[in-house]
Amino acid sequence: MKIALAQLNYYIGDFQGNLSRMEDAVQRASSEGVDLVVFSELAICGYPPLDLLEREDFITSCNLYIEKLARVTDPEIGILVGGPEFNPHKEGKLLFNSVYFLNDGSIKQVFRKSLLPTYDIFDEYRYFEANREFKVLTYKGKRLAITICEDLWDEQPFENEFSRSRLYTTNPLESLMESKPDVIINLAASPFSHRKMEVKQSVFTGKAIRYGLPVLYCNQVGGQTELLFEGGSLAITPSGKVARRLKFFQEDFGIVDLNDLISEKAPQNTVKIPDRIEAMANALECGIRDYFGKLNFKSATLGLSGGIDSAVTLALASGALGPENLHVLLLPSQYSSTHSVDDSLELVKNLGVKSDILPIESVFDQFIESLHPLFGDLPEDITEENIQARIRGTLLMALSNKFGNILLNTSNKSETAVGYGTLYGDMSGGLSVLGDVYKTDVYLLARYFNRKKEVIPNHIITKPPSAELRPDQKDTDSLPPYDQLDQILEAYIEKQLSTEKVAEMGFDPDLIRRIIGMVNKNEYKRYQTPPILRISSKAFGVGRRLPLVAKY
Amino acid sequence: MKIALAQLNYYIGDFQGNLSRMEDAVQRASSEGVDLVVFSELAICGYPPLDLLEREDFITSCNLYIEKLARVTDPEIGILVGGPEFNPHKEGKLLFNSVYFLNDGSIKQVFRKSLLPTYDIFDEYRYFEANREFKVLTYKGKRLAITICEDLWDEQPFENEFSRSRLYTTNPLESLMESKPDVIINLAASPFSHRKMEVKQSVFTGKAIRYGLPVLYCNQVGGQTELLFEGGSLAITPSGKVARRLKFFQEDFGIVDLNDLISEKAPQNTVKIPDRIEAMANALECGIRDYFGKLNFKSATLGLSGGIDSAVTLALASGALGPENLHVLLLPSQYSSTHSVDDSLELVKNLGVKSDILPIESVFDQFIESLHPLFGDLPEDITEENIQARIRGTLLMALSNKFGNILLNTSNKSETAVGYGTLYGDMSGGLSVLGDVYKTDVYLLARYFNRKKEVIPNHIITKPPSAELRPDQKDTDSLPPYDQLDQILEAYIEKQLSTEKVAEMGFDPDLIRRIIGMVNKNEYKRYQTPPILRISSKAFGVGRRLPLVAKY
Repeated sequence: MKIALAQLNYYIGDFQGNLSRMEDAVQRASSEGVDLVVFSELAICGYPPLDLLEREDFITSCNLYIEKLARVTDPEIGILVGGPEFNPHKEGKLLFNSVYFLNDGSIKQVFRKSLLPTYDIFDEYRYFEANREFKVLTYKGKRLAITICEDLWDEQPFENEFSRSRLYTTNPLESLMESKPDVIINLAASPFSHRKMEVKQSVFTGKAIRYGLPVLYCNQVGGQTELLFEGGSLAITPSGKVARRLKFFQEDFGIVDLNDLISEKAPQNTVKIPDRIEAMANALECGIRDYFGKLNFKSATLGLSGGIDSAVTLALASGALGPENLHVLLLPSQYSSTHSVDDSLELVKNLGVKSDILPIESVFDQFIESLHPLFGDLPEDITEENIQARIRGTLLMALSNKFGNILLNTSNKSETAVGYGTLYGDMSGGLSVLGDVYKTDVYLLARYFNRKKEVIPNHIITKPPSAELRPDQKDTDSLPPYDQLDQILEAYIEKQLSTEKVAEMGFDPDLIRRIIGMVNKNEYKRYQTPPILRISSKAFGVGRRLPLVAKY
Repeated sequence: MKIALAQLNYYIGDFQGNLSRMEDAVQRASSEGVDLVVFSELAICGYPPLDLLEREDFITSCNLYIEKLARVTDPEIGILVGGPEFNPHKEGKLLFNSVYFLNDGSIKQVFRKSLLPTYDIFDEYRYFEANREFKVLTYKGKRLAITICEDLWDEQPFENEFSRSRLYTTNPLESLMESKPDVIINLAASPFSHRKMEVKQSVFTGKAIRYGLPVLYCNQVGGQTELLFEGGSLAITPSGKVARRLKFFQEDFGIVDLNDLISEKAPQNTVKIPDRIEAMANALECGIRDYFGKLNFKSATLGLSGGIDSAVTLALASGALGPENLHVLLLPSQYSSTHSVDDSLELVKNLGVKSDILPIESVFDQFIESLHPLFGDLPEDITEENIQARIRGTLLMALSNKFGNILLNTSNKSETAVGYGTLYGDMSGGLSVLGDVYKTDVYLLARYFNRKKEVIPNHIITKPPSAELRPDQKDTDSLPPYDQLDQILEAYIEKQLSTEKVAEMGFDPDLIRRIIGMVNKNEYKRYQTPPILRISSKAFGVGRRLPLVAKY
């Protein structure tokens, strides 16, 4: 039996577009004598549809388009495709998260998801009832165990040590094994995490070895606002060897022969798992490209400060959108060093990006004059620093409004964590590119871009970081060095360790308390940040929900 | 048996503060010969703790303080208090949402929540395993059926017609009835919704009548960032009469005699359910007061435009914080009408609020001059309107930064829905007061404030709404009249009706499509709005999760 894994990039709610993509894949599969085409979880509408699942018209459309897709099948070719299904029982959630088996022009059978992830970015129990009945699909003489994403994740490898690995009281694979299947097929929408590429693969190889069965895994690919899906679909032999791996962050299509897989004869795969920083760069570029592409925007702007964050953001945007679609502003103030402008000009020259210089001093002076009746002779403080940041935000948004491009936010995760940024100033933008990337990784990304030649001027990488909002300001005036800060932040945010446990890593308890205090106090700022491209297991945004008003 | 309902306002994570409040209530109860004191759901930490529940140190503190609270009990007085509990089983979510029965100095028994709301603002399955074992508490010769909030809501009265009423496959009350209880006790954290005060009460009276038992309901009170809990705890007789109702939006304490309740002899209650607009005003004032109070801020600022939204926001803030803690700015431009300033000055005089006038024209001119090299002679458009709004936002934030007060956002739900507002301009602020109040209700709130004398100048209420960002602009230039707009919005947002079903209400399908298109297109703006005080069943914010990038 020849099975095709169709790894596609869906656009949420674009039923006609998604259908066309899938029809093309079926046509290609058909011409190559494929028996079964496998798409991904909730492919008919794209994942995650969120509260669109609460709308009757949305579910009706899903069902209609599943039926349309069924019409491209004939007796020789079948399709497995994810979509929501009305729960036929009178009690429980209204929907199941299901896989439809389509064959010979119609829906033949439906399989339902049992393990519904409801943690971090996942909200599936908000919409779906969990399946409790298990059966296999018999097709062309083979018995196929159909599972959906989390169904294989009965043991979770969480980074937070306090989380437990066994979140569920059922185990769908154990139940399915009673029907003696020939293969495990998994339709997934499994988001990217830069420390988890190997871990994720080991879940699938582990199941193959445990049950002595081949595993086929078809993942969604592409960016869905903040969520990035890496693709990397897999065909695994019963001994746990990766026989086929599809591309990362691109659509791909691969055919495997089930008998070859079972007999371990399948050819070894050639697509490699990229290293961590390369994967991160690819993920972020994919996130930018799809955010713009799906919204039907072509061009972006951002403010180049001469620092490393805006430089790396620009390099990523250039890769994603093309340098010809970028128009950046240099917005120097009286506190900006000359090298900030020079370094930025060298960078835009290297990349071939259009830039303009708009000094902000005259607008700043006018603000100060307008506020004089209120402020009198009060000393300068953070207020005046914030005014500079907000003037820059206003100028960038003016460019965005006038020419119809989207402002990219350049804040990194370290500064977002401790609140080192100005709301409505440098925290503005339609999309945050680096908001889930710690400063130490921003440096590694810069070096990655310079791996072949110097794209990002070396001086940007080597000079000490500064916001340049007052004379001779340095980030280290108020923060510890980033290599220390980032370790503390990751221990607190990703691993959710207590002050005491972070102290066991060798940091000063007073420093830890100060840092954690800053993180907690600035929850209110992060509430209003743009969507952040998520590359870690715990990003700021939808997957991290903390009270703004709390004592902890 | 004398039972006290202790309706308190908790501060999330302030274990010592919450404990002190509860100890005071127990002391008072003890002095009045009470046998059992009932607090609310997750009272030990305050509701909703959100992802703090994922932290080991947080759960450990909860358990520690439950034990501390137990020490104030003796053999004569018991306590029912909500708190998280470690799940002793090896599989399933790590926690239960539980009620601890404390007596004679220690924890005697634990009861667990069965129905875990996971919709709208609720995320309980994110943290908790559902209970499946049912038992009653036997105490001083009575059999008490202990339930937690949603446990009584096995049938849901959702506004969205597509939602189903029976979300759960278990029914805890039916199971508890097998143990023949004498009373149903419900510990709750049930948020306010302005159209649901009667509906909520009918859930409790309905259960009393159905089972022929008294029902005691103890709700949390107070604001928790966007969520508002109205209190209004209840004691209901077996025939469904309300024998006691505690206050709305205030802490309260009430003692009932269980035997009197059973024999229908309990005195009739005196606290009345306020009408819809009065309740809304009380809810919003409570939300402002608690947001500031818990964050330890005293003073607020806002921009007075001369329109009704900022006027009503100011009246609410004045009630919540006192006029002496407000300092507002009038920020006229060349497009502002003279009556805008005059009306605003009359309003601040009526309320006794400090105000300053800062014209924005000179800063605006400087922005235009700075942008001239980029914009050349391109015609004016939305860009220049947004610059005005962002100058105002920057000036208001400067005041906030310099003097340490919080900027209140004045956008209403109608304009927030259709994206009629400027990000980083008038959409700025620490808290959105009216973001869940449709414009037509903003007018009713204004009339409510004027019920005794004219607080809000009548001209503000009667003049046609305008953003005054260009000459002679009116809201109706681009929007239908608000009475029509609000009906369409409520049908789409709260009831989640399709275009076709909204058209059945008598509106033009093209108009409906245009309005719905505006709502959908502006999801990205709402992503970055401040937290919105929630007074409806479907507010923008945490309870409404829609993809920013989607076609629908």
